[in-house]
Amino acid sequence: MMTADHLSALIVKLREERPLVHNMTNVVVTNFTANGLLALGASPVMAYAREEVADMARIAGALVLNLGTLSAELVESMMIAGQAANKHGVPVLLDPVGAGATPYRTISAQRILQEVDVSLIRGNAAEIAHLIGEDHTIKGVDAGDTKLGDERRALAVRAAKKLNTVVVVTGSEDVITDGQSGNMVRGGHPLLTQVTGTGCLLTSVLGAFVAVEKDRLLAGTAGLGFYGAAALRGAERTENQGVGSFQIAFLDELSRLNPVSLAGNVSIREFVI
Amino acid sequence: MMTADHLSALIVKLREERPLVHNMTNVVVTNFTANGLLALGASPVMAYAREEVADMARIAGALVLNLGTLSAELVESMMIAGQAANKHGVPVLLDPVGAGATPYRTISAQRILQEVDVSLIRGNAAEIAHLIGEDHTIKGVDAGDTKLGDERRALAVRAAKKLNTVVVVTGSEDVITDGQSGNMVRGGHPLLTQVTGTGCLLTSVLGAFVAVEKDRLLAGTAGLGFYGAAALRGAERTENQGVGSFQIAFLDELSRLNPVSLAGNVSIREFVI
Amino acid sequence: MMTADHLSALIVKLREERPLVHNMTNVVVTNFTANGLLALGASPVMAYAREEVADMARIAGALVLNLGTLSAELVESMMIAGQAANKHGVPVLLDPVGAGATPYRTISAQRILQEVDVSLIRGNAAEIAHLIGEDHTIKGVDAGDTKLGDERRALAVRAAKKLNTVVVVTGSEDVITDGQSGNMVRGGHPLLTQVTGTGCLLTSVLGAFVAVEKDRLLAGTAGLGFYGAAALRGAERTENQGVGSFQIAFLDELSRLNPVSLAGNVSIREFVI
Repeated sequence: MMTADHLSALIVKLREERPLVHNMTNVVVTNFTANGLLALGASPVMAYAREEVADMARIAGALVLNLGTLSAELVESMMIAGQAANKHGVPVLLDPVGAGATPYRTISAQRILQEVDVSLIRGNAAEIAHLIGEDHTIKGVDAGDTKLGDERRALAVRAAKKLNTVVVVTGSEDVITDGQSGNMVRGGHPLLTQVTGTGCLLTSVLGAFVAVEKDRLLAGTAGLGFYGAAALRGAERTENQGVGSFQIAFLDELSRLNPVSLAGNVSIREFVI
Repeated sequence: MMTADHLSALIVKLREERPLVHNMTNVVVTNFTANGLLALGASPVMAYAREEVADMARIAGALVLNLGTLSAELVESMMIAGQAANKHGVPVLLDPVGAGATPYRTISAQRILQEVDVSLIRGNAAEIAHLIGEDHTIKGVDAGDTKLGDERRALAVRAAKKLNTVVVVTGSEDVITDGQSGNMVRGGHPLLTQVTGTGCLLTSVLGAFVAVEKDRLLAGTAGLGFYGAAALRGAERTENQGVGSFQIAFLDELSRLNPVSLAGNVSIREFVI
Repeated sequence: MMTADHLSALIVKLREERPLVHNMTNVVVTNFTANGLLALGASPVMAYAREEVADMARIAGALVLNLGTLSAELVESMMIAGQAANKHGVPVLLDPVGAGATPYRTISAQRILQEVDVSLIRGNAAEIAHLIGEDHTIKGVDAGDTKLGDERRALAVRAAKKLNTVVVVTGSEDVITDGQSGNMVRGGHPLLTQVTGTGCLLTSVLGAFVAVEKDRLLAGTAGLGFYGAAALRGAERTENQGVGSFQIAFLDELSRLNPVSLAGNVSIREFVI
């Protein structure tokens, strides 16, 4: 049974252990990802060269593969890093940015999934759907009504079963599941969609939590919860100022998270299939 | 006849359509460009790999080629993307960052202009001059006196005629022209020159406007006007705080633009050759 | 004899000359480096392609080689740029980010040192130790007590003698030395360690000072001092707000530096071996 105390304890553990998160991410979000992880209390590192990624992944607490700006060389490096992580028991997270937008992204994501054992995948509904060969059929403004939440949850469960891993589908309400059970996490703020890289950073944040807690559902739920709480607080502090101020306030709030941050800011509902 | 109403209506249209702007830009400004486009209300995407740029350019509302940190591979990818955009009627914008600073940049810019049909080019006076084989002879502190404005306008007209496209030359007063007529747009703020990537982001912003309005002079004038208004407002809000605060306030103001933002903040003068 | 007046005069000189600093740096910190240099009053440029780095390095006031995200191509480009800088008397600075973290980084740093004449190296104690083949044995929380400062100074002196250049080792108290004499500079703020790229930007800032003052001990001491003063002021302004706000305030303070900024904010102690 996952309790609020279990979740809240993880932010303390993360800051004590300061896990090294090896990010192989896209060129748009590298700075924001590093600053977000530092604010959270983790230790970010970026390394891309085939000559060194195995050495770096081996000593990391988690490896994050983000497909936002792929190249042939980068895919090869990701394979090397992913397999080194697998060999040394380092969890690997996948963020299939833009899967479905071009065939190359979908194919590259699927190739990584075939050759690397991935511990957790995070994407929006369209990305996760394309990853398992479904058309993305969720319609509407993605405004979080019950029907959309139900569809997102069903999609996450299908993906988790098919890909045999933990899947996170983010939206107005986030889903995390291993295909058997999981959690719906409601937090965050629509302003997150107006700052680039907030999804990418979230995947790296989930990596930091997975690095300090082996139960991936527990770690992932904590990550989603704390991230959502920071966003909500940042949005409240900067209401009507604009998206630049929100971005900075969000980083501030990541650095100010503490064991009581979840209370009153995030709602979590368990589900069992 | 271009009226204030025509210009002001475009910010509403842009936010309704949320055009996808495919940026192939330099590594310094990717994050700022994406955040600026999101703040404006457009949908940014970055993609660089030869394996996918044609697929991405085809579905975009505009393609922006920025030469700030070139490589041989990137130039090849830009050719592929540019030709795909041409084939599918997607407007292509060129930002010849640093043309003239090294021969490689000048040659690459000219090569792109030979092989890709470019809808709009934006640069400062030195960059545009080098693009058409002129030495950059505009002297002085670029402080916006009448003589400098006249020289900048004449340069833009020569470039537009020679390159047979719409040319924007930015400075203390911006010029946009198709070689026959055009506008002088006075707005903005000198603080823009103290934040990296404000020129690059402007080119991408012009891409977003061109994506929703086929009349390039109208679209470009609106883009220059709204951009200048946001900068002026951001500078007023952060007077004497420093350039970090200005950068954030400018993003804020981009997200707060509305149909009355031009009034009182920007002056536009039409000219005919 | 280095006086406070000598140091303070350099910020004025830097802003008058606006030296061009050619940065070949990692993908995480490009934007922050460019904005920091602009705030300081220098002119940043980034260029990486082998086709143009020699042309760019030749016209720069300083060349900064940063190993944060290496690739085989980038190392080759750095050799070309470094040798062009050497040939034209342009000072070269090296930031061996993560030397010791992977063998590839250590080997690449050593290869650059063999083939390029480097004017100044800046790193933390671990990086500098690995560069000269020492294990990093400085323990503890790096909290700036006397013993740590003594160890850091001794390490810097050993490195400066062995590598025959000026070495800066940063920490709670910074050391700069040519192996014969030097300065301990106490300033800055622990918040600097929670923003990515503050070490990288510092190396580029030292490049800007070295570009305007040939005495590297004087130039480097001024750079360390002004950087530390800006950090301290930024931290004071944003106390308890969080790391996002500090990052912006720090950029603000870099842009507000003036000849009296060192007074009361930084302490400098000369030493002779």
